[in-house]
Amino acid sequence: MEFAVNSPALDLLFREAHTTHTFTDEPVTDRQIQGIYDLVKLGPTAFNQSPLRITIVRTAEARERLLTHLVEGNQAKTAAAPLSVILSADAEFHAELPRLFPAFPDAKDAFFAERPVREQSALVNAAMQAAYFIVGIRALGLAAGPMNGMDPDGIQKEFLDADHLPLMVVNIGKAAEGGHYPRGPRLDFAEVATTV
Amino acid sequence: MEFAVNSPALDLLFREAHTTHTFTDEPVTDRQIQGIYDLVKLGPTAFNQSPLRITIVRTAEARERLLTHLVEGNQAKTAAAPLSVILSADAEFHAELPRLFPAFPDAKDAFFAERPVREQSALVNAAMQAAYFIVGIRALGLAAGPMNGMDPDGIQKEFLDADHLPLMVVNIGKAAEGGHYPRGPRLDFAEVATTV
Repeated sequence: MEFAVNSPALDLLFREAHTTHTFTDEPVTDRQIQGIYDLVKLGPTAFNQSPLRITIVRTAEARERLLTHLVEGNQAKTAAAPLSVILSADAEFHAELPRLFPAFPDAKDAFFAERPVREQSALVNAAMQAAYFIVGIRALGLAAGPMNGMDPDGIQKEFLDADHLPLMVVNIGKAAEGGHYPRGPRLDFAEVATTV
Repeated sequence: MEFAVNSPALDLLFREAHTTHTFTDEPVTDRQIQGIYDLVKLGPTAFNQSPLRITIVRTAEARERLLTHLVEGNQAKTAAAPLSVILSADAEFHAELPRLFPAFPDAKDAFFAERPVREQSALVNAAMQAAYFIVGIRALGLAAGPMNGMDPDGIQKEFLDADHLPLMVVNIGKAAEGGHYPRGPRLDFAEVATTV
């Protein structure tokens, strides 16, 4: 298959990339997180709703509080990671829609007047942005350790508010040698695709 | 910001990429869709659950059926696109978990015994895979036109089954000159990020 992106880039973004549990000590700066965001914010979402929100857990005190809401198996690796971020979905994203989607200023009320609809849309579209964000981390030469093993209610109460739905925690840093497990098997194309 | 991926690649994947409504006549083959899938299947999902399923709408007859379930504004551009795919989430993904996540063969029953939990997990993780898929389309030098403007129940009844939840339809092809609208504004980093 002839890609338009060169092979080293595809290796870095997908083929040689792994969910990482152990990182080097090299710090990760807020400026790097902004660089990743400014790249991947360009990825598409429905109505350009852009519901992803990022909580950068920077201080030792905040990290301690984060650990108490992770499952035990995620605590030590998160304590040792250079940086962790909480990715959440803003269920009130529609307030910004007239600015974000000026082609249809009425979308806010026409499609997103109801909170359950907004929550579902925010979760699905923030998940898309979380995927772009992971690709962006790798584009910067860093590795990502995304985790769902957490108490979402605890995370929400501790760091967010009722309008921000926790999606995942992502550890970020330079991958340490051997800092990942062997890749799990993936489903073959024939198992996931149908042609009609 | 110093990225590890070169600038032409980042331009192609994000900076110069646009949701596309008009494509050239150049066909898109199933082999190309497989090439995209085989790259982006490597992107991470929770428990490696990999719930994304792809329905390639290839025949003229199937495309006609698809059009009837799209909102009017999406019909003409889909009729003219080289290829459309329906992306859906398999709510019964857990059946494959013992194979996909051998490190914890019990995850299937421990976390995903309940259908509503599976549906939510499938939608969120298939959305992540849809985002990787869009990145993969662009990596191949093609353009994507993802759309939510559809009747999901109609799509499900026409092309899927009760276990497959429609996520979006994506038109795929070589972008035509002027085949996209100007990019909508994005939220600034300061609007989405908090440091604690």
